[in-house]
Amino acid sequence: MSRIWVINPNTTTSMTAGIGRCAQAVAGPGVEIVAVTSEYGPPSIESHYDEAMSVPGLLEAIRRGEDAGADGYVIACFGDPGLDAARELATGPVVGIAEAAMQTASHLGRGFSVVTTLSRTMGRAADLAERYGMQRFCLGIHACDIPVLDLETDPTARKVITEACREALDADGSDAIVLGCAGMAEMCAAITAELGVPVVDGVSAATLTVQSLVRMGLRTGKRGEFATPPAKEYTVRRGV
Amino acid sequence: MSRIWVINPNTTTSMTAGIGRCAQAVAGPGVEIVAVTSEYGPPSIESHYDEAMSVPGLLEAIRRGEDAGADGYVIACFGDPGLDAARELATGPVVGIAEAAMQTASHLGRGFSVVTTLSRTMGRAADLAERYGMQRFCLGIHACDIPVLDLETDPTARKVITEACREALDADGSDAIVLGCAGMAEMCAAITAELGVPVVDGVSAATLTVQSLVRMGLRTGKRGEFATPPAKEYTVRRGV
Amino acid sequence: MSRIWVINPNTTTSMTAGIGRCAQAVAGPGVEIVAVTSEYGPPSIESHYDEAMSVPGLLEAIRRGEDAGADGYVIACFGDPGLDAARELATGPVVGIAEAAMQTASHLGRGFSVVTTLSRTMGRAADLAERYGMQRFCLGIHACDIPVLDLETDPTARKVITEACREALDADGSDAIVLGCAGMAEMCAAITAELGVPVVDGVSAATLTVQSLVRMGLRTGKRGEFATPPAKEYTVRRGV
Amino acid sequence: MSRIWVINPNTTTSMTAGIGRCAQAVAGPGVEIVAVTSEYGPPSIESHYDEAMSVPGLLEAIRRGEDAGADGYVIACFGDPGLDAARELATGPVVGIAEAAMQTASHLGRGFSVVTTLSRTMGRAADLAERYGMQRFCLGIHACDIPVLDLETDPTARKVITEACREALDADGSDAIVLGCAGMAEMCAAITAELGVPVVDGVSAATLTVQSLVRMGLRTGKRGEFATPPAKEYTVRRGV
Amino acid sequence: MSRIWVINPNTTTSMTAGIGRCAQAVAGPGVEIVAVTSEYGPPSIESHYDEAMSVPGLLEAIRRGEDAGADGYVIACFGDPGLDAARELATGPVVGIAEAAMQTASHLGRGFSVVTTLSRTMGRAADLAERYGMQRFCLGIHACDIPVLDLETDPTARKVITEACREALDADGSDAIVLGCAGMAEMCAAITAELGVPVVDGVSAATLTVQSLVRMGLRTGKRGEFATPPAKEYTVRRGV
Amino acid sequence: MSRIWVINPNTTTSMTAGIGRCAQAVAGPGVEIVAVTSEYGPPSIESHYDEAMSVPGLLEAIRRGEDAGADGYVIACFGDPGLDAARELATGPVVGIAEAAMQTASHLGRGFSVVTTLSRTMGRAADLAERYGMQRFCLGIHACDIPVLDLETDPTARKVITEACREALDADGSDAIVLGCAGMAEMCAAITAELGVPVVDGVSAATLTVQSLVRMGLRTGKRGEFATPPAKEYTVRRGV
Repeated sequence: MSRIWVINPNTTTSMTAGIGRCAQAVAGPGVEIVAVTSEYGPPSIESHYDEAMSVPGLLEAIRRGEDAGADGYVIACFGDPGLDAARELATGPVVGIAEAAMQTASHLGRGFSVVTTLSRTMGRAADLAERYGMQRFCLGIHACDIPVLDLETDPTARKVITEACREALDADGSDAIVLGCAGMAEMCAAITAELGVPVVDGVSAATLTVQSLVRMGLRTGKRGEFATPPAKEYTVRRGV
Repeated sequence: MSRIWVINPNTTTSMTAGIGRCAQAVAGPGVEIVAVTSEYGPPSIESHYDEAMSVPGLLEAIRRGEDAGADGYVIACFGDPGLDAARELATGPVVGIAEAAMQTASHLGRGFSVVTTLSRTMGRAADLAERYGMQRFCLGIHACDIPVLDLETDPTARKVITEACREALDADGSDAIVLGCAGMAEMCAAITAELGVPVVDGVSAATLTVQSLVRMGLRTGKRGEFATPPAKEYTVRRGV
Repeated sequence: MSRIWVINPNTTTSMTAGIGRCAQAVAGPGVEIVAVTSEYGPPSIESHYDEAMSVPGLLEAIRRGEDAGADGYVIACFGDPGLDAARELATGPVVGIAEAAMQTASHLGRGFSVVTTLSRTMGRAADLAERYGMQRFCLGIHACDIPVLDLETDPTARKVITEACREALDADGSDAIVLGCAGMAEMCAAITAELGVPVVDGVSAATLTVQSLVRMGLRTGKRGEFATPPAKEYTVRRGV
Repeated sequence: MSRIWVINPNTTTSMTAGIGRCAQAVAGPGVEIVAVTSEYGPPSIESHYDEAMSVPGLLEAIRRGEDAGADGYVIACFGDPGLDAARELATGPVVGIAEAAMQTASHLGRGFSVVTTLSRTMGRAADLAERYGMQRFCLGIHACDIPVLDLETDPTARKVITEACREALDADGSDAIVLGCAGMAEMCAAITAELGVPVVDGVSAATLTVQSLVRMGLRTGKRGEFATPPAKEYTVRRGV
Repeated sequence: MSRIWVINPNTTTSMTAGIGRCAQAVAGPGVEIVAVTSEYGPPSIESHYDEAMSVPGLLEAIRRGEDAGADGYVIACFGDPGLDAARELATGPVVGIAEAAMQTASHLGRGFSVVTTLSRTMGRAADLAERYGMQRFCLGIHACDIPVLDLETDPTARKVITEACREALDADGSDAIVLGCAGMAEMCAAITAELGVPVVDGVSAATLTVQSLVRMGLRTGKRGEFATPPAKEYTVRRGV
Repeated sequence: MSRIWVINPNTTTSMTAGIGRCAQAVAGPGVEIVAVTSEYGPPSIESHYDEAMSVPGLLEAIRRGEDAGADGYVIACFGDPGLDAARELATGPVVGIAEAAMQTASHLGRGFSVVTTLSRTMGRAADLAERYGMQRFCLGIHACDIPVLDLETDPTARKVITEACREALDADGSDAIVLGCAGMAEMCAAITAELGVPVVDGVSAATLTVQSLVRMGLRTGKRGEFATPPAKEYTVRRGV
């Protein structure tokens, strides 16, 4: 039995619930999914500032996971916040959903299009594509301009996103779609059905990537850059 | 229940057996591994010529897999021969072991070293690293200069490879090792134990990658470059 | 007197005849052109599968060339199939027509546009541009969506291709055109005349590149990756 | 009169003092340097974890700077933590010391070597060189393996660093040195004198870069990715 | 007191005057700006030929600057002609306006658009973006097709350029504009006012960059490629 | 009958003679080689300054070639000085010897090593490798530190260069050598004989490349960047 912590680095618990359902749906027998909400940080991550502010809460969740004996971690935000730091802290493997989604999509053809939420987050997706070596597969990044938290409540959201996917496929000549937000995870099957092309949800992809790494006994190499960080006295912010 | 065909594109059945054991060892419950040997081609793949000559046999195996209802395929040679053509033929996903091993290792730190068999195959590994966007993670490619088929019989093989891995780690400052030949798959655990760093076997990595793709219902996009190839009358070589 | 084998890796002899005429037209005095058709493989090459299946026939032709004392080889298909393997087999130089056409066009300005046959082959052209370092010169790849064998019979083919070239020049702001199929070789002069820009036919370009290499006494370096492949017992496919 | 805030994103005030002296030494007349220490975070930044944990304190300092009417900001840590988020928050320009040091050194020849503190931080320097387009100028990254806070107290530190610089120049064939830590800023003149090559201190370089931007009236573009982040209710960690 | 020579490498003195005014306007107290016109060469630089022919005159100006004790140099043409050679000759730092403008703009967001004069100069701007590592920030290069010398006399010039900037911002999704000609320097404030985005003039940027380098005591590294060139007898062109 | 001007852009006529012999030795029947010495400029090209100063003389030679009806041009210095400007001026094709040598060597294996004269010229060779897309084939650049004009007179020169080639082959694992100076052209056969690997002389390579371009009727595209430069009144330096 292995345990994978799927951490939502924003503080919105309804979003964590959806993420947990997606992870659970693909996890194999013998894998326990623990969906976790960050205890502090922003309610949604839609800017570099939001992302930066989400990292301490995420890292705190990793620490709790270590205490609880987690075997691996998913960072369930498409900005993959805090990934390097989390790899230093964690014993087991840590995978971001952008990382996993893009790598997964790279197996499906020459290239994919990313469809994300707000335009202002497109730059971050481009940075990550470069970081993961996925620039050559990432043929375009598109925004539907729906705020993250509206994904749950806006009744037209799925239609708008599906349309953005269709336009992206045409504009980029791509073979597959990558959904660029954890909040879109539960729409993946419906969008796939409408478009008839492979659509990748990062939450599922990252959960299975971590599951596979755990199955192979693989974890972050600790002989250099990603060794446990040296213990230090941190000055902590006092309440508000 | 899903069925994954793990195809050894050389004609050496003892090697297929080892590959099959590795794939089986990591496959989840509900996944049937079918280890297949190419019916024609070279006994081992150690040159561009060997690789080119292995492809028709590999593609024939894919055709048989399609007839048998395979859900996905692993190409179990570190040169990933025929990958693009196989994706055109197959309904389900197809993954090469170099592709899967490198992507898997990219989750484990800043970079990895590849340790392969003959020096003359290092160029192919470099080409694949570039193709998969893994150049930035692939910090070095090293050869142990043991022919592929000697991996099974040479009693010093594992020791020589382990030593090559150790030197690679130091020379490259890498976080992990990627074993650059399907014939090394069964040595992975022992080498890991000796080195104390993550060591990635591509057969395991690719098997789990295909299993995950199948789990998510993802397959090669068929709207463009990877559509089923147009049917044609092929002139076939008459046996020697 | 030197002899250059120009190998058509598909099995359509009328196409070989046209290729041979183009090669002959540019070859210098003292250079004998031998236009050769593959003995087995696909009638035209329009997919990764076709290309993979053409390689054994091509390599067989190289072997025959070696027996006949050929001084150098042209691979006369814009996918440059089997180039690496051919370089291992051959004593003299081997050049592909995509390789030669793109390098030739790189001398003519900042960049060129490729105009090829079917859309599904555009990806292969992009792969080759990268492989040869020509990505920076290759400003766009365009398809006219005429199947290879229709180039000879479709009376509108040349007009459609010329129009595609014109659109490519405008869209890419390029200085020259590269024709992306050996089957277009004989249209080169007419298209040049209509467009008034340099138009490069790969058959001519590769023939002259091989002729120049032979003139300088240059052949593939054999001290490493491209040494003659180790002799092995290959299992050969029997009959159909 | 313009005011530049030079923010030390670790909590060690003696280091801030040194940074402030360096900034002041190069600042022009009419420029007020305000050297600021982060109110919370790590005492030194030597891992991805340290860096991530330094960002909220840094951003809080930016907020204070906005309230105080700062005209521009220097992030005085060679990891350039929180740069994107800071640019969203600030009205005036924000420059990191790695960014400024590398760009400055790029004017001095074909390339430079970076000499930093701990080996584990070399990866971050490489990431930043790529991000800023400075990979082509950054010919090598070297560590002297002196912890950041020992730079002030270890009497051999300067000698060790100077020696590391000398070795780097030879190994890389570089034209200049970039000092890879704000804590090395005050050694710059002495190392320059010993080596006789240009040595760049990022604190000076970034201070002057911000001063120049302010002089030209240039600030972060706010029409897209770097617009002020949307206001949200953040959950704040309650002090330990 | 430091002296910066701002060299206009064309022979049009009215353009030198404008360049001098821009440099003076941003230079700090204690910095003397010497605006210099090349004594021979083309009246404007609008082709590779013009640029090549401007270099000897520019280098002659550098020699005069050395005799006069100049502390640093700006090459005030957006093609940055003769930069490498000038760095060999000069004791102090030398910076081109394209180099400085692009680096300056890289601090202002994810990327910038260049707006230059004639279309035929766009290639040179692209070459320079690559040379300086600024390709990743340079999101597009656009021409307004106004000849250089008409910038001073054509009453519609500023309007046309402003419109080209506006279109560039939209087409590229960029955060800032880089003006691609020294002759546009004096329009910078007005264009900024109209567009409301950061607009970078290279003359100002390079002047401040050189001023900063001088302030830090930094000059071209002289231990290798940029050492003073070996003295030789040059054959000089006689008369016309 | 076609006429190719092979221009030595330095003023040393003995070097022109050697270059002419090499070009003549490979040129086909019906091709007249005209070896030309620049009328003004440096006696040898060993710095960016030398190279810049050689360009006007080279361009003057191109003008004379145009008047004389030259069909194509070789720029016979490994720095390929003035290539872009020459392409604007000339009606026929213009090829540099670095360009031709590197492209030629790219057909001979995975990669080549360049062996040049002075260390300070290695940077220029690297710039050209990048410009021509040959970075991926150029596995190393090495200097023998023999001044250009000593190549003719130093009796040990060939031995020193041969040894440098041997070391380069081992250090880089390359398949071929590119000689990095026109002054080495006549040593090519002897070095080849000693090393037993392909050795490429750029003068031969460029001569044959131009011959091939002329044979195919290809010349620089003139519809954009490389159109004839606009006529202008140039201010000319009055002889010393």
